[in-house]
Amino acid sequence: MTQRVRVAVIGVGRLGRRHAEVIAYQTPQAELVAIADASAEAARTAADALRVERWTTDPAEIMADPNIDAVVIASSTATHAALIIAAAKAGKDIFCEKPIALDLATTDEAIDAVAAAGVRLQVGFQRRFDVPYVKAKSMIDSGVMGSIEFIRDAMRDPVPASREYLATCGGIFRDLTIHNFDNVRWLMGQDVDEVFTMGSALVDPMFAELNDVDTSVVSVRFANGSLASIESGRRAGFGYDVRTEVFGSEGALMIGYTRETAVLHYTKEGVTSDHVQWFLDRFADAYTAELVAFVQSIVDDTPTSVGSEAGRAALAMAYAAERSLQEHRPVKLAEFNRGGTA
Amino acid sequence: MTQRVRVAVIGVGRLGRRHAEVIAYQTPQAELVAIADASAEAARTAADALRVERWTTDPAEIMADPNIDAVVIASSTATHAALIIAAAKAGKDIFCEKPIALDLATTDEAIDAVAAAGVRLQVGFQRRFDVPYVKAKSMIDSGVMGSIEFIRDAMRDPVPASREYLATCGGIFRDLTIHNFDNVRWLMGQDVDEVFTMGSALVDPMFAELNDVDTSVVSVRFANGSLASIESGRRAGFGYDVRTEVFGSEGALMIGYTRETAVLHYTKEGVTSDHVQWFLDRFADAYTAELVAFVQSIVDDTPTSVGSEAGRAALAMAYAAERSLQEHRPVKLAEFNRGGTA
Amino acid sequence: MTQRVRVAVIGVGRLGRRHAEVIAYQTPQAELVAIADASAEAARTAADALRVERWTTDPAEIMADPNIDAVVIASSTATHAALIIAAAKAGKDIFCEKPIALDLATTDEAIDAVAAAGVRLQVGFQRRFDVPYVKAKSMIDSGVMGSIEFIRDAMRDPVPASREYLATCGGIFRDLTIHNFDNVRWLMGQDVDEVFTMGSALVDPMFAELNDVDTSVVSVRFANGSLASIESGRRAGFGYDVRTEVFGSEGALMIGYTRETAVLHYTKEGVTSDHVQWFLDRFADAYTAELVAFVQSIVDDTPTSVGSEAGRAALAMAYAAERSLQEHRPVKLAEFNRGGTA
Amino acid sequence: MTQRVRVAVIGVGRLGRRHAEVIAYQTPQAELVAIADASAEAARTAADALRVERWTTDPAEIMADPNIDAVVIASSTATHAALIIAAAKAGKDIFCEKPIALDLATTDEAIDAVAAAGVRLQVGFQRRFDVPYVKAKSMIDSGVMGSIEFIRDAMRDPVPASREYLATCGGIFRDLTIHNFDNVRWLMGQDVDEVFTMGSALVDPMFAELNDVDTSVVSVRFANGSLASIESGRRAGFGYDVRTEVFGSEGALMIGYTRETAVLHYTKEGVTSDHVQWFLDRFADAYTAELVAFVQSIVDDTPTSVGSEAGRAALAMAYAAERSLQEHRPVKLAEFNRGGTA
Repeated sequence: MTQRVRVAVIGVGRLGRRHAEVIAYQTPQAELVAIADASAEAARTAADALRVERWTTDPAEIMADPNIDAVVIASSTATHAALIIAAAKAGKDIFCEKPIALDLATTDEAIDAVAAAGVRLQVGFQRRFDVPYVKAKSMIDSGVMGSIEFIRDAMRDPVPASREYLATCGGIFRDLTIHNFDNVRWLMGQDVDEVFTMGSALVDPMFAELNDVDTSVVSVRFANGSLASIESGRRAGFGYDVRTEVFGSEGALMIGYTRETAVLHYTKEGVTSDHVQWFLDRFADAYTAELVAFVQSIVDDTPTSVGSEAGRAALAMAYAAERSLQEHRPVKLAEFNRGGTA
Repeated sequence: MTQRVRVAVIGVGRLGRRHAEVIAYQTPQAELVAIADASAEAARTAADALRVERWTTDPAEIMADPNIDAVVIASSTATHAALIIAAAKAGKDIFCEKPIALDLATTDEAIDAVAAAGVRLQVGFQRRFDVPYVKAKSMIDSGVMGSIEFIRDAMRDPVPASREYLATCGGIFRDLTIHNFDNVRWLMGQDVDEVFTMGSALVDPMFAELNDVDTSVVSVRFANGSLASIESGRRAGFGYDVRTEVFGSEGALMIGYTRETAVLHYTKEGVTSDHVQWFLDRFADAYTAELVAFVQSIVDDTPTSVGSEAGRAALAMAYAAERSLQEHRPVKLAEFNRGGTA
Repeated sequence: MTQRVRVAVIGVGRLGRRHAEVIAYQTPQAELVAIADASAEAARTAADALRVERWTTDPAEIMADPNIDAVVIASSTATHAALIIAAAKAGKDIFCEKPIALDLATTDEAIDAVAAAGVRLQVGFQRRFDVPYVKAKSMIDSGVMGSIEFIRDAMRDPVPASREYLATCGGIFRDLTIHNFDNVRWLMGQDVDEVFTMGSALVDPMFAELNDVDTSVVSVRFANGSLASIESGRRAGFGYDVRTEVFGSEGALMIGYTRETAVLHYTKEGVTSDHVQWFLDRFADAYTAELVAFVQSIVDDTPTSVGSEAGRAALAMAYAAERSLQEHRPVKLAEFNRGGTA
Repeated sequence: MTQRVRVAVIGVGRLGRRHAEVIAYQTPQAELVAIADASAEAARTAADALRVERWTTDPAEIMADPNIDAVVIASSTATHAALIIAAAKAGKDIFCEKPIALDLATTDEAIDAVAAAGVRLQVGFQRRFDVPYVKAKSMIDSGVMGSIEFIRDAMRDPVPASREYLATCGGIFRDLTIHNFDNVRWLMGQDVDEVFTMGSALVDPMFAELNDVDTSVVSVRFANGSLASIESGRRAGFGYDVRTEVFGSEGALMIGYTRETAVLHYTKEGVTSDHVQWFLDRFADAYTAELVAFVQSIVDDTPTSVGSEAGRAALAMAYAAERSLQEHRPVKLAEFNRGGTA
């Protein structure tokens, strides 16, 4: 038997626990060797369930252990950048949930630390590992779609998160739409020139109180003149919405699930299916696949496919979308270049 | 302006009235010149609505009028054969609702009269003019499906007709499944060798009292060994069912509508569409197209595409299916050849 | 028999001929009494085919005839306003293809003439009579969707029209997107506050030469803060695109056809259906229904459901969308009020 | 940490290897402790890959080890019964791929051994653990479908297996249709009264040479008069077919996948999706779930949900279907009762 990649998971909340299970049971080339969480109870419970002997409340222990090869960071967003910097200094490969940080300056610091240390960084844009999106990207890259002229990307969460969460999450664009910012850049394979945002607080007056919006559409112009439209919602009246349409000169792709279970129910009132209502259901396989790919990149000694540049670019789009909303004008991405005027 | 085909419609019940409207408004090459119905009230009402001056309760008047070129027979089934024979003797082209008659002997008499007179006969198997079925038949004939090995044909009516109707309709196979008998023969392009029937009275005990069944499956073997399965129901729990699947060596076709209106309704409970629940909705265009084709065959002086042979063959299959059910054995179609042992 | 509404059709090009056939064969309460077209050949051919005795190249003859109750105007756009004004002065009810005119001033003149004469005007926004859209509107109005927060409306034509047509059609927003401007206003049931446009010439350099765009997205804010996004394309890589999504607090509606023919073709390469690729196929029933409704409004002496106000409002949105594109800023609809600063 | 169920897998061919992976990585309550295979190479390779120290070519070693709690039997069909009997005598719980044996007498021996030893037996009818089928069964049992009157069950394999396999597999009914025999019994919740079979060799003349058929339809009558129709094919022209329709007095269910990947590809030629073409893709989750359930039944000390009775009943239906084909008559299941006349 060959040596497996030794991985520690930091933060075992909803998504971190999922990541830990994947490392423990679904990535044969890795082993889960330690769990860290600010809550001792959470850390111990997860360690017991996953048959891991070692747990801690102090991530510094993880960083100090030379027998740990890589870390999966799924703690609260505010801790991401410091943990990335610490792990980079300790020479560990890093998988980090999005976003790297809520602000560009801190993001740039973390990115610089990763570059200086020469470690791997993968950002948790799981959509890049989702089979339907991977297939679409592959068809686009193959040329079969011709030149891509327009992308429509829609995402609506089931219900608003708690006010506590929403007050500190950085707003709809850094928290939710950031997935779509990455998605349209990746699918189009183009840099973004400009965005314009329309947004309203329609779902809950809380969003207006937080100086945020809950319903928005961001128009995007890419460097080559192609366009995208990104719809975001803090609440889908029907449960959950993740769909993307790609329009090329030779055809179009419609990405997304209609049915969750392959059963159609016919009654006199109509034909009904259920549909996917929860991101952990929708992206279950993608959350596994992104960690399998991360481990594989370590085993193969190759770069990760979605790293620092992608993480920064998506956040810069969020900045631009916010400024457009605040200043009621189209905003160039160049305003947020490193060393730029932002 | 060229001369239009002068058509009389005999019987303006539900379907006959529909036929009369089609002749009046949707077949520019024909004109509706007379209406006959056993009920003077029904005849006059239809004539008024369709702006036809002439109506009668006596079909003999229609037959006697040399200025009438063709008749559409949509009166009760028991009258079909006599009207066909009278029209044939009068030299008129004939469109007749299915079936020609409820028994083979009478059917043969009518067919012989048509042949002797050299007039056209078209039987109202409207499915042959339905766009989805026409497209499927065309794909089969083109060879793109390879050799056809199996057909599954399903038909379930919304609710049982009245006891009065059911007692005189000839039973499920002559009344309802006869559409499917014609359909599978047409699509397969093969003569039928043998059938076997399983049937039950599950929907309503009335069917058992009438010595009939309401739920059945007829297995069909064609001359070349290919197979079909025909499912019939006197009541679809969900409203109405008309679907056909064709399995070839190179692919398969699934024919039938899921949605009626092109609207999907998403709620937290699922995704719902309506669906087609009524034969006049499902086959609206086909009921028009079959009369347009009938008129066109007169204008072009060509044979009709679905005539005596098709009408007799479908009825013979109904006879065979009944005998199989009664005698609990597979039954050869050869038992019902003309001059045969039936 | 009651008296039928006597209708003349002016302009029997592609759509006008379709309208004439509908009046001749599918609106039993109306009769087609005259045809006018600038081309004598076109007028005579149509009159022959539809068995109408009277045709002319001079619409003034139509206007002068007191026995004509109503006109259907389907001549070239440049002639619409003058014909509306003439018909109004002659006291005839008017059905006119969209748009009323290419500019707001002329539109206002025509509207004023209609109002002064007290005749009916119906504008040819056929989508308002399309069964799926009618059903969606009815569900929205019933309250079952909750409050509507967002509408996504997509329309992409099969291929660009000729350069001659495009040079005089008024640009993408007055020519094509005007259908969507009317559509989102109607579905949302709200006045429009502001629009922002992004557009590019990606399909054909001809559009840039004409100072037009071929691919665009218009963001719309309504008076109550709700939003819409309208995607337009002069060429759908896959043929034709007409789809609308309505997001409410209680659910969503997805409007549009996937399949044209109810046949799914399964092969080893996948599952395929055809899809609707032509507006006369997609809206065949709607083009009939809008004229049936127009005739019915005359018979019933009721207003038309889509008249002057709708025609002007959609054109004002087109103006605003153009100005947004030209001036690279969000534009208020108030800039185009009558007596406004536009 | 609690003690995990110690499982050995016997036979690591295509499906056995899959089972071993599931035990190793996806059933946290079990651990994979040994692998047996007639081929030392196969056993060692699997053991290495799955990090299991112990492997053997002799199943008797497995049976003799008191530290092994349960066995998963996925070796060739001819070995199933003897291994079941040995495992039962050794007091081990047993998961065995279908069928228990190719003949009823041997099946009865194995069943008796299991009963005498009081161990668990679960037969590998994985469809019972497939989410769409589980949902359908649950809806049926809830009463929402009303009384079930008809089931249509279709299964068509991608391509015929090798002649060697086909010559020893027991024929289409024991090898392939046995899944559907179990499926319709389970969904209907009724004993079978009678079957009738039509079958042909259409796909490959090899089947006729083997005195087998490759295309068949089996009509089924249940004890309560309800019906089923089972279509089987040794080759789906389009790849793979697993679909079931359930017709109840209150509605119907259509079970099965159309798309594999949630991407629709629109071109001028139509709308295309891929579809599932391989049983290990279609039933991936079910193959996991059935072993998770088996392990859970051991942990919870409960019976398995699909055991001896189901295994025997499905095989008896296969016997009846074969006899019907050979003797060209409907055949009662009672002919194959234990102690019966078969």
